[in-house]
Amino acid sequence: MGATTKDGMDIADKSREIVKRKIFEVLNEKIDLYSDEEMGLIERVVHATADPEYAKLILFNNGPIKNCLDALNNKKPIITDISMVKAGIRYNNIVCTISDKETFEYAKKYGITRAVASIRSLKDEIDGGIIVIGNAPTALLEVIRLYNEEKIRPKLVLGVPVGFVKASESKELLRTLNIPSISTIGPKGGTPIAVSLMNGIIALSKNERI
Amino acid sequence: MGATTKDGMDIADKSREIVKRKIFEVLNEKIDLYSDEEMGLIERVVHATADPEYAKLILFNNGPIKNCLDALNNKKPIITDISMVKAGIRYNNIVCTISDKETFEYAKKYGITRAVASIRSLKDEIDGGIIVIGNAPTALLEVIRLYNEEKIRPKLVLGVPVGFVKASESKELLRTLNIPSISTIGPKGGTPIAVSLMNGIIALSKNERI
Repeated sequence: MGATTKDGMDIADKSREIVKRKIFEVLNEKIDLYSDEEMGLIERVVHATADPEYAKLILFNNGPIKNCLDALNNKKPIITDISMVKAGIRYNNIVCTISDKETFEYAKKYGITRAVASIRSLKDEIDGGIIVIGNAPTALLEVIRLYNEEKIRPKLVLGVPVGFVKASESKELLRTLNIPSISTIGPKGGTPIAVSLMNGIIALSKNERI
Repeated sequence: MGATTKDGMDIADKSREIVKRKIFEVLNEKIDLYSDEEMGLIERVVHATADPEYAKLILFNNGPIKNCLDALNNKKPIITDISMVKAGIRYNNIVCTISDKETFEYAKKYGITRAVASIRSLKDEIDGGIIVIGNAPTALLEVIRLYNEEKIRPKLVLGVPVGFVKASESKELLRTLNIPSISTIGPKGGTPIAVSLMNGIIALSKNERI
Protein backbone atom coordinates (compact mmCIF):
# COMPACT_ATOMS: atom_id res chain seq x y z
CA MET A 1 0.00 0.00 0.00
CA GLY A 2 3.01 2.31 -0.43
CA ALA A 3 4.27 1.98 3.13
CA THR A 4 7.87 0.81 3.38
CA THR A 5 8.79 1.59 7.00
CA LYS A 6 7.55 -0.20 10.13
CA ASP A 7 5.48 2.78 11.31
CA GLY A 8 4.01 3.17 7.85
CA MET A 9 3.12 -0.52 7.71
CA ASP A 10 1.52 -0.49 11.19
CA ILE A 11 -0.81 2.30 10.06
CA ALA A 12 -1.58 0.42 6.84
CA ASP A 13 -2.41 -2.79 8.75
CA LYS A 14 -4.68 -1.06 11.23
CA SER A 15 -6.38 0.85 8.43
CA ARG A 16 -6.93 -2.33 6.45
CA GLU A 17 -8.82 -3.93 9.35
CA ILE A 18 -11.14 -0.94 9.64
CA VAL A 19 -11.56 -0.84 5.86
CA LYS A 20 -12.66 -4.50 5.78
CA ARG A 21 -15.28 -3.80 8.44
CA LYS A 22 -16.62 -0.72 6.62
CA ILE A 23 -16.86 -2.65 3.35
CA PHE A 24 -18.78 -5.40 5.07
CA GLU A 25 -21.21 -2.79 6.41
CA VAL A 26 -21.83 -1.58 2.86
CA LEU A 27 -21.96 -4.91 1.00
CA ASN A 28 -23.17 -7.41 3.64
CA GLU A 29 -23.68 -10.86 2.11
CA LYS A 30 -22.97 -9.47 -1.38
CA ILE A 31 -19.32 -9.59 -0.35
CA ASP A 32 -19.31 -13.26 -1.47
CA LEU A 33 -19.88 -12.18 -5.08
CA TYR A 34 -16.31 -10.91 -5.31
CA SER A 35 -13.07 -12.82 -5.85
CA ASP A 36 -10.22 -12.34 -3.37
CA GLU A 37 -8.37 -10.25 -5.95
CA GLU A 38 -11.39 -8.04 -6.60
CA MET A 39 -11.99 -7.57 -2.88
CA GLY A 40 -8.31 -6.68 -2.39
CA LEU A 41 -8.66 -3.96 -5.02
CA ILE A 42 -11.86 -2.62 -3.48
CA GLU A 43 -10.11 -2.47 -0.10
CA ARG A 44 -7.33 -0.41 -1.65
CA VAL A 45 -9.82 2.12 -3.01
CA VAL A 46 -11.65 2.48 0.31
CA HIS A 47 -8.29 2.82 2.05
CA ALA A 48 -7.21 5.55 -0.40
CA THR A 49 -10.43 7.57 -0.20
CA ALA A 50 -11.78 6.77 3.29
CA ASP A 51 -15.08 6.49 1.43
CA PRO A 52 -16.74 3.08 1.92
CA GLU A 53 -19.42 3.93 -0.66
CA TYR A 54 -16.89 2.88 -3.32
CA ALA A 55 -17.44 -0.74 -2.28
CA LYS A 56 -20.73 -0.68 -4.14
CA LEU A 57 -19.62 1.56 -7.01
CA ILE A 58 -16.75 -0.46 -8.49
CA LEU A 59 -17.58 -2.83 -11.34
CA PHE A 60 -15.34 -5.46 -12.96
CA ASN A 61 -16.28 -6.45 -16.52
CA ASN A 62 -14.89 -9.03 -18.95
CA GLY A 63 -11.98 -10.40 -16.93
CA PRO A 64 -10.08 -7.16 -16.35
CA ILE A 65 -7.61 -8.45 -13.75
CA LYS A 66 -6.49 -11.49 -15.74
CA ASN A 67 -6.17 -9.48 -18.95
CA CYS A 68 -4.24 -6.74 -17.19
CA LEU A 69 -1.87 -9.26 -15.61
CA ASP A 70 -1.18 -10.68 -19.09
CA ALA A 71 -0.34 -7.22 -20.36
CA LEU A 72 1.91 -6.50 -17.37
CA ASN A 73 3.72 -9.82 -17.84
CA ASN A 74 4.33 -8.83 -21.46
CA LYS A 75 5.73 -5.46 -20.32
CA LYS A 76 3.01 -3.56 -22.16
CA PRO A 77 2.80 0.18 -21.48
CA ILE A 78 0.33 1.87 -19.15
CA ILE A 79 -1.16 5.00 -20.70
CA THR A 80 -2.72 7.58 -18.36
CA ASP A 81 -4.94 10.57 -19.08
CA ILE A 82 -3.28 13.00 -16.66
CA SER A 83 0.11 13.48 -15.00
CA MET A 84 -1.24 13.06 -11.46
CA VAL A 85 -2.34 9.52 -12.29
CA LYS A 86 1.06 8.81 -13.83
CA ALA A 87 2.83 10.15 -10.74
CA GLY A 88 1.01 7.72 -8.48
CA ILE A 89 1.52 4.46 -10.40
CA ARG A 90 4.55 2.32 -9.63
CA TYR A 91 5.56 0.97 -13.04
CA ASN A 92 8.45 1.83 -15.30
CA ASN A 93 6.67 2.01 -18.66
CA ILE A 94 4.04 4.71 -18.25
CA VAL A 95 3.07 7.18 -20.96
CA CYS A 96 1.18 10.44 -20.51
CA THR A 97 1.30 13.23 -23.10
CA ILE A 98 -1.44 15.57 -21.82
CA SER A 99 1.05 18.33 -20.97
CA ASP A 100 3.15 18.02 -24.14
CA LYS A 101 3.30 21.04 -26.40
CA GLU A 102 2.29 18.90 -29.40
CA THR A 103 -0.86 17.74 -27.59
CA PHE A 104 -1.89 21.29 -26.83
CA GLU A 105 -1.35 22.39 -30.43
CA TYR A 106 -3.21 19.38 -31.83
CA ALA A 107 -6.15 20.02 -29.48
CA LYS A 108 -6.32 23.68 -30.43
CA LYS A 109 -6.08 22.96 -34.16
CA TYR A 110 -8.96 20.46 -34.16
CA GLY A 111 -11.06 22.07 -31.42
CA ILE A 112 -10.92 18.99 -29.17
CA THR A 113 -9.91 18.63 -25.52
CA ARG A 114 -6.25 18.02 -24.71
CA ALA A 115 -7.35 14.73 -23.16
CA VAL A 116 -8.81 13.56 -26.48
CA ALA A 117 -5.79 14.76 -28.44
CA SER A 118 -3.47 12.91 -26.10
CA ILE A 119 -5.42 9.62 -26.31
CA ARG A 120 -5.78 9.82 -30.11
CA SER A 121 -2.04 10.28 -30.59
CA LEU A 122 -1.32 7.25 -28.40
CA LYS A 123 -3.61 4.72 -30.09
CA ASP A 124 -0.75 2.39 -31.05
CA GLU A 125 0.34 2.15 -27.42
CA ILE A 126 -3.26 1.68 -26.25
CA ASP A 127 -3.76 -1.25 -28.65
CA GLY A 128 -2.79 -4.23 -26.49
CA GLY A 129 -1.83 -1.93 -23.63
CA ILE A 130 -3.41 -0.73 -20.40
CA ILE A 131 -5.26 2.57 -20.36
CA VAL A 132 -5.99 4.31 -17.08
CA ILE A 133 -8.38 7.25 -17.03
CA GLY A 134 -8.73 8.98 -13.68
CA ASN A 135 -10.05 12.34 -14.70
CA ALA A 136 -11.37 13.16 -18.16
CA PRO A 137 -14.65 11.70 -19.49
CA THR A 138 -13.69 12.89 -22.96
CA ALA A 139 -10.55 10.71 -22.81
CA LEU A 140 -12.67 7.66 -22.04
CA LEU A 141 -15.11 8.51 -24.84
CA GLU A 142 -12.14 8.69 -27.21
CA VAL A 143 -10.93 5.24 -26.11
CA ILE A 144 -14.45 3.94 -26.86
CA ARG A 145 -14.38 5.62 -30.27
CA LEU A 146 -10.98 4.04 -31.01
CA TYR A 147 -12.44 0.65 -30.05
CA ASN A 148 -15.53 1.07 -32.22
CA GLU A 149 -14.10 2.83 -35.25
CA GLU A 150 -10.43 1.89 -35.37
CA LYS A 151 -10.47 -1.59 -33.83
CA ILE A 152 -8.08 -0.59 -31.05
CA ARG A 153 -8.14 -3.34 -28.41
CA PRO A 154 -6.75 -2.44 -24.96
CA LYS A 155 -6.10 -5.29 -22.52
CA LEU A 156 -7.65 -3.19 -19.76
CA VAL A 157 -9.59 0.05 -19.66
CA LEU A 158 -9.45 1.30 -16.11
CA GLY A 159 -12.04 3.99 -16.59
CA VAL A 160 -12.89 6.05 -13.53
CA PRO A 161 -13.34 9.62 -14.77
CA VAL A 162 -15.00 11.92 -12.27
CA GLY A 163 -17.60 14.65 -12.52
CA PHE A 164 -21.18 15.63 -13.11
CA VAL A 165 -20.85 16.08 -16.87
CA LYS A 166 -20.35 13.06 -19.14
CA ALA A 167 -18.48 10.95 -16.54
CA SER A 168 -21.37 8.60 -15.64
CA GLU A 169 -22.46 8.28 -19.25
CA SER A 170 -18.95 7.54 -20.53
CA LYS A 171 -18.55 4.75 -17.96
CA GLU A 172 -21.98 3.28 -18.73
CA LEU A 173 -21.08 3.22 -22.41
CA LEU A 174 -17.79 1.49 -21.63
CA ARG A 175 -19.65 -1.27 -19.81
CA THR A 176 -21.83 -2.00 -22.84
CA LEU A 177 -18.75 -3.04 -24.82
CA ASN A 178 -16.81 -6.28 -24.81
CA ILE A 179 -13.71 -4.65 -23.27
CA PRO A 180 -11.99 -5.82 -20.08
CA SER A 181 -12.73 -2.90 -17.79
CA ILE A 182 -12.88 -1.64 -14.25
CA SER A 183 -15.13 1.36 -13.72
CA THR A 184 -17.34 3.14 -11.19
CA ILE A 185 -21.08 3.70 -11.20
CA GLY A 186 -22.14 7.35 -11.22
CA PRO A 187 -20.19 10.61 -11.12
CA LYS A 188 -17.63 9.57 -8.50
CA GLY A 189 -14.12 8.47 -9.44
CA GLY A 190 -10.78 10.24 -9.82
CA THR A 191 -7.06 9.97 -9.38
CA PRO A 192 -6.88 8.05 -6.07
CA ILE A 193 -9.34 5.46 -7.36
CA ALA A 194 -7.41 4.99 -10.61
CA VAL A 195 -4.04 4.83 -8.88
CA SER A 196 -5.04 2.49 -6.06
CA LEU A 197 -6.68 0.03 -8.47
CA MET A 198 -3.73 0.06 -10.86
CA ASN A 199 -1.11 -0.29 -8.13
CA GLY A 200 -3.15 -3.15 -6.69
CA ILE A 201 -2.98 -5.12 -9.94
CA ILE A 202 0.74 -4.32 -10.25
CA ALA A 203 1.22 -5.73 -6.73
CA LEU A 204 -0.66 -8.87 -7.79
CA SER A 205 1.63 -9.25 -10.80
CA LYS A 206 4.62 -9.30 -8.45
CA ASN A 207 2.93 -11.67 -6.00
CA GLU A 208 3.06 -8.90 -3.42
CA ARG A 209 0.40 -8.41 -0.80
CA ILE A 210 -2.40 -6.65 -2.61
CA MET B 1 -10.06 24.41 -13.54
CA GLY B 2 -7.36 22.95 -15.79
CA ALA B 3 -9.37 23.17 -19.00
CA THR B 4 -7.66 25.14 -21.74
CA THR B 5 -9.65 24.21 -24.85
CA LYS B 6 -13.20 25.29 -25.76
CA ASP B 7 -14.65 21.78 -25.29
CA GLY B 8 -12.84 21.43 -21.99
CA MET B 9 -14.14 24.78 -20.79
CA ASP B 10 -17.73 23.97 -21.83
CA ILE B 11 -17.63 20.84 -19.67
CA ALA B 12 -16.12 22.84 -16.80
CA ASP B 13 -18.84 25.52 -17.05
CA LYS B 14 -21.68 23.02 -17.10
CA SER B 15 -20.14 21.10 -14.23
CA ARG B 16 -19.73 24.24 -12.16
CA GLU B 17 -23.46 25.00 -12.44
CA ILE B 18 -24.36 21.53 -11.20
CA VAL B 19 -21.74 21.76 -8.46
CA LYS B 20 -23.22 25.03 -7.17
CA ARG B 21 -26.65 23.40 -6.98
CA LYS B 22 -25.34 20.34 -5.14
CA ILE B 23 -23.47 22.49 -2.63
CA PHE B 24 -26.62 24.47 -1.97
CA GLU B 25 -28.49 21.22 -1.28
CA VAL B 26 -25.86 20.32 1.33
CA LEU B 27 -25.34 23.71 2.99
CA ASN B 28 -28.67 25.51 2.53
CA GLU B 29 -28.66 28.89 4.27
CA LYS B 30 -25.26 28.13 5.82
CA ILE B 31 -23.85 29.02 2.41
CA ASP B 32 -23.88 32.67 3.52
CA LEU B 33 -21.24 31.92 6.16
CA TYR B 34 -18.57 31.59 3.46
CA SER B 35 -16.68 34.29 1.57
CA ASP B 36 -16.72 34.23 -2.24
CA GLU B 37 -13.13 32.94 -2.24
CA GLU B 38 -13.94 30.16 0.22
CA MET B 39 -17.01 29.14 -1.78
CA GLY B 40 -14.94 29.12 -4.97
CA LEU B 41 -12.48 26.72 -3.33
CA ILE B 42 -15.27 24.47 -2.04
CA GLU B 43 -16.74 24.36 -5.55
CA ARG B 44 -13.39 23.23 -6.90
CA VAL B 45 -13.24 20.34 -4.43
CA VAL B 46 -16.77 19.17 -5.22
CA HIS B 47 -15.98 19.45 -8.93
CA ALA B 48 -12.80 17.38 -8.49
CA THR B 49 -14.41 14.63 -6.40
CA ALA B 50 -18.07 14.66 -7.53
CA ASP B 51 -18.73 14.35 -3.81
CA PRO B 52 -20.93 17.17 -2.46
CA GLU B 53 -20.39 16.02 1.13
CA TYR B 54 -17.10 17.92 1.03
CA ALA B 55 -19.10 21.16 1.20
CA LYS B 56 -19.68 20.53 4.88
CA LEU B 57 -16.28 18.98 5.62
CA ILE B 58 -13.90 21.78 4.62
CA LEU B 59 -12.83 24.20 7.35
CA PHE B 60 -10.89 27.46 7.00
CA ASN B 61 -9.01 28.59 10.11
CA ASN B 62 -6.95 31.68 10.93
CA GLY B 63 -7.05 33.47 7.56
CA PRO B 64 -5.56 30.75 5.39
CA ILE B 65 -6.33 32.30 1.99
CA LYS B 66 -4.88 35.72 2.78
CA ASN B 67 -1.77 34.22 4.37
CA CYS B 68 -1.25 31.86 1.47
CA LEU B 69 -1.64 34.68 -1.07
CA ASP B 70 1.06 36.63 0.81
CA ALA B 71 3.39 33.63 0.60
CA LEU B 72 2.66 33.13 -3.11
CA ASN B 73 3.30 36.83 -3.80
CA ASN B 74 6.65 36.44 -2.04
CA LYS B 75 7.47 33.39 -4.23
CA LYS B 76 7.66 31.12 -1.19
CA PRO B 77 7.94 27.40 -1.91
CA ILE B 78 5.08 24.91 -1.74
CA ILE B 79 6.10 21.70 0.03
CA THR B 80 4.01 18.56 -0.59
CA ASP B 81 3.94 15.24 1.22
CA ILE B 82 3.70 13.03 -1.88
CA SER B 83 4.61 13.17 -5.57
CA MET B 84 1.01 12.87 -6.76
CA VAL B 85 0.12 16.09 -4.99
CA LYS B 86 3.17 17.78 -6.48
CA ALA B 87 2.23 16.55 -9.97
CA GLY B 88 -1.17 18.20 -9.76
CA ILE B 89 -0.20 21.68 -8.55
CA ARG B 90 0.53 24.40 -11.10
CA TYR B 91 3.40 26.33 -9.53
CA ASN B 92 7.06 26.47 -10.34
CA ASN B 93 8.58 26.25 -6.88
CA ILE B 94 7.32 22.95 -5.44
CA VAL B 95 9.39 20.65 -3.24
CA CYS B 96 8.70 17.00 -2.48
CA THR B 97 11.40 14.64 -1.21
CA ILE B 98 9.35 11.57 -0.24
CA SER B 99 10.88 9.41 -2.98
CA ASP B 100 14.49 10.58 -2.49
CA LYS B 101 17.04 7.97 -1.49
CA GLU B 102 18.15 10.14 1.44
CA THR B 103 14.62 10.27 2.80
CA PHE B 104 14.27 6.51 2.68
CA GLU B 105 17.59 6.01 4.47
CA TYR B 106 16.79 8.62 7.11
CA ALA B 107 13.39 7.01 7.77
CA LYS B 108 14.91 3.56 8.10
CA LYS B 109 17.69 4.75 10.38
CA TYR B 110 15.34 6.46 12.86
CA GLY B 111 12.38 4.09 12.51
CA ILE B 112 10.00 6.82 11.30
CA THR B 113 7.78 7.00 8.21
CA ARG B 114 9.23 8.37 4.99
CA ALA B 115 6.58 11.10 5.20
CA VAL B 116 7.92 12.26 8.57
CA ALA B 117 11.54 12.06 7.41
CA SER B 118 10.73 14.15 4.36
CA ILE B 119 8.90 16.86 6.33
CA ARG B 120 11.60 17.01 9.03
CA SER B 121 14.35 17.54 6.48
CA LEU B 122 12.40 20.38 4.85
CA LYS B 123 11.69 22.44 7.97
CA ASP B 124 13.58 25.50 6.68
CA GLU B 125 11.42 25.59 3.54
CA ILE B 126 8.23 25.02 5.57
CA ASP B 127 9.04 27.99 7.83
CA GLY B 128 7.27 30.87 6.05
CA GLY B 129 6.25 28.55 3.21
CA ILE B 130 3.13 26.64 2.20
CA ILE B 131 2.79 23.01 3.21
CA VAL B 132 0.27 20.78 1.45
CA ILE B 133 -0.51 17.36 2.90
CA GLY B 134 -2.84 15.22 0.81
CA ASN B 135 -2.03 11.79 2.08
CA ALA B 136 -0.02 11.09 5.21
CA PRO B 137 -1.34 11.85 8.72
CA THR B 138 2.16 11.33 10.08
CA ALA B 139 3.41 14.17 7.85
CA LEU B 140 0.79 16.50 9.32
CA LEU B 141 1.65 15.42 12.87
CA GLU B 142 5.30 16.24 12.12
CA VAL B 143 4.34 19.73 10.89
CA ILE B 144 2.47 20.20 14.17
CA ARG B 145 5.51 19.00 16.13
CA LEU B 146 7.74 21.42 14.22
CA TYR B 147 5.31 24.24 15.09
CA ASN B 148 5.18 23.33 18.77
CA GLU B 149 8.76 22.31 19.43
CA GLU B 150 10.85 24.12 16.85
CA LYS B 151 8.80 27.30 16.27
CA ILE B 152 8.40 26.60 12.57
CA ARG B 153 5.70 28.94 11.22
CA PRO B 154 4.15 28.00 7.87
CA LYS B 155 2.00 30.63 6.12
CA LEU B 156 -0.52 27.91 5.28
CA VAL B 157 -0.98 24.31 6.33
CA LEU B 158 -3.29 22.72 3.78
CA GLY B 159 -3.84 19.56 5.77
CA VAL B 160 -6.19 17.02 4.20
CA PRO B 161 -4.63 13.62 4.93
CA VAL B 162 -6.98 10.71 4.32
CA GLY B 163 -7.70 7.47 6.13
CA PHE B 164 -9.18 5.74 9.13
CA VAL B 165 -6.02 5.81 11.24
CA LYS B 166 -4.74 9.12 12.65
CA ALA B 167 -6.10 11.30 9.81
CA SER B 168 -9.09 12.76 11.69
CA GLU B 169 -7.08 13.20 14.87
CA SER B 170 -4.18 14.92 13.11
CA LYS B 171 -6.56 17.41 11.48
CA GLU B 172 -8.41 18.09 14.74
CA LEU B 173 -5.09 18.79 16.44
CA LEU B 174 -4.11 21.16 13.62
CA ARG B 175 -7.29 23.14 14.19
CA THR B 176 -6.50 23.69 17.87
CA LEU B 177 -3.38 25.67 16.94
CA ASN B 178 -3.00 29.24 15.83
CA ILE B 179 -1.89 28.26 12.30
CA PRO B 180 -3.55 29.44 9.09
CA SER B 181 -5.02 26.18 7.84
CA ILE B 182 -7.49 24.52 5.53
CA SER B 183 -8.53 21.02 6.55
CA THR B 184 -11.35 18.50 6.40
CA ILE B 185 -13.48 17.04 9.19
CA GLY B 186 -13.21 13.26 9.59
CA PRO B 187 -11.30 10.58 7.66
CA LYS B 188 -11.98 11.91 4.16
CA GLY B 189 -9.42 13.91 2.22
CA GLY B 190 -6.70 13.07 -0.26
CA THR B 191 -4.83 14.19 -3.33
CA PRO B 192 -7.70 15.70 -5.38
CA ILE B 193 -8.84 17.74 -2.39
CA ALA B 194 -5.32 19.04 -1.72
CA VAL B 195 -4.64 19.81 -5.36
CA SER B 196 -7.95 21.50 -6.15
CA LEU B 197 -7.71 23.75 -3.07
CA MET B 198 -4.10 24.71 -3.77
CA ASN B 199 -4.67 25.37 -7.48
CA GLY B 200 -7.69 27.46 -6.52
CA ILE B 201 -5.60 29.77 -4.34
CA ILE B 202 -2.92 29.95 -7.04
CA ALA B 203 -5.63 31.00 -9.51
CA LEU B 204 -6.74 33.70 -7.05
CA SER B 205 -3.15 34.95 -6.79
CA LYS B 206 -3.13 35.48 -10.58
CA ASN B 207 -6.59 37.08 -10.58
CA GLU B 208 -7.80 34.16 -12.69
CA ARG B 209 -11.27 32.74 -12.41
CA ILE B 210 -11.16 30.56 -9.31
